[in-house]
Amino acid sequence: MKVYDIPGFPSPLRIRVVLAEKGLTSQVEFINIDLPAAEHKQPAFLAMNPAGTVPVLELDDGFYLSECTAITEYLDNLDGNPTLTGTTPKEKGVIHMMQKRADDQLIDAIGIYFHHATDGLGDGLKPYKSPEWADRTVWGEMHRDKAIKGMKYFDSVLKTQPYVAGDQFSMADITVWAGLIFAGYAQIKVPQACTALIAWNAKVGERPSVKNPA
Amino acid sequence: MKVYDIPGFPSPLRIRVVLAEKGLTSQVEFINIDLPAAEHKQPAFLAMNPAGTVPVLELDDGFYLSECTAITEYLDNLDGNPTLTGTTPKEKGVIHMMQKRADDQLIDAIGIYFHHATDGLGDGLKPYKSPEWADRTVWGEMHRDKAIKGMKYFDSVLKTQPYVAGDQFSMADITVWAGLIFAGYAQIKVPQACTALIAWNAKVGERPSVKNPA
Repeated sequence: MKVYDIPGFPSPLRIRVVLAEKGLTSQVEFINIDLPAAEHKQPAFLAMNPAGTVPVLELDDGFYLSECTAITEYLDNLDGNPTLTGTTPKEKGVIHMMQKRADDQLIDAIGIYFHHATDGLGDGLKPYKSPEWADRTVWGEMHRDKAIKGMKYFDSVLKTQPYVAGDQFSMADITVWAGLIFAGYAQIKVPQACTALIAWNAKVGERPSVKNPA
Repeated sequence: MKVYDIPGFPSPLRIRVVLAEKGLTSQVEFINIDLPAAEHKQPAFLAMNPAGTVPVLELDDGFYLSECTAITEYLDNLDGNPTLTGTTPKEKGVIHMMQKRADDQLIDAIGIYFHHATDGLGDGLKPYKSPEWADRTVWGEMHRDKAIKGMKYFDSVLKTQPYVAGDQFSMADITVWAGLIFAGYAQIKVPQACTALIAWNAKVGERPSVKNPA
């Protein structure tokens, strides 16, 4: 398998943690995509993923799989022992519910703030934004507020259970963890009152897969 | 099980088609939520789903499950025979990839256009929008354009295969189909050049679950 990504960025990190969790790191070749130069917005990359996002997983049969949830479902089920996406119907449902909330409230909200309301990754990506958009400050503030509200929501969840989707570490924990990494890059601070979220983040940071992602 | 929703609306329809596909209609009690009166933005509803969206599925143990992807994963796996979310790792991956694209490019883009750039469901929901936002026209046009681009993308996919995620009908087809229903409500027309998408939509419309959803 091949992964097209850029090391250290939030969404690529999600899949690199999944690879480490599943013991698949040695089976993957990594190919670097130059995000600041907008390589992911050029025809060659868009032919792999029309959404223009990293990471992309190239399967051994040449198929290009994108979107972190989809890539995680694939990798987690390869060994017939899905440890990150659930085994019972309820586990699958709850993990996907929390995954969607983490995507919407953290990753996507922070992404909108970072890429459109700040300088983001720099001038190379400007042509792919909305230059005619006058009022990016209001839009940006709204999405930063959404991300902070999301942090408070996940804090409330983690006050009642050890992991985002219940008693066990799952795909949804990886997404919230990557969301907090992204928040750091975007300089959106976790409210100090979110003590359960902060304690959970420290605990997740000690996992071998998070300390040593692929 | 109980479903909190409103008949005929796009996201509720997604789950009502899933229920019909899985033969689960008779096992569900439906409870109507008054969206135009903003019932889904009030504390009682937010306690079930903090994201403030319908539908919500109440499991027999009292757990509230929301987000269509999550509810579909739950319902599709109840009988141990997932016909809508895939069985092999690759099927699961491809279905979730196309599901995310249909959510992003159709359902969410049309939702932003409909709820924020038009009168949407009327004045009852105004307090939950962004009244201070000056330039909703640019934002709205951008998301309408995104939806039309999404239609063209799915048309290109359906020119090469019978269903959205490959050879078999799946959760991703239900989402694209609901996206086109939503586009109709929002008065975003499918481009006439999207002949494969239009033919696929007619074919899906003939499925018993789509003709007679729960």
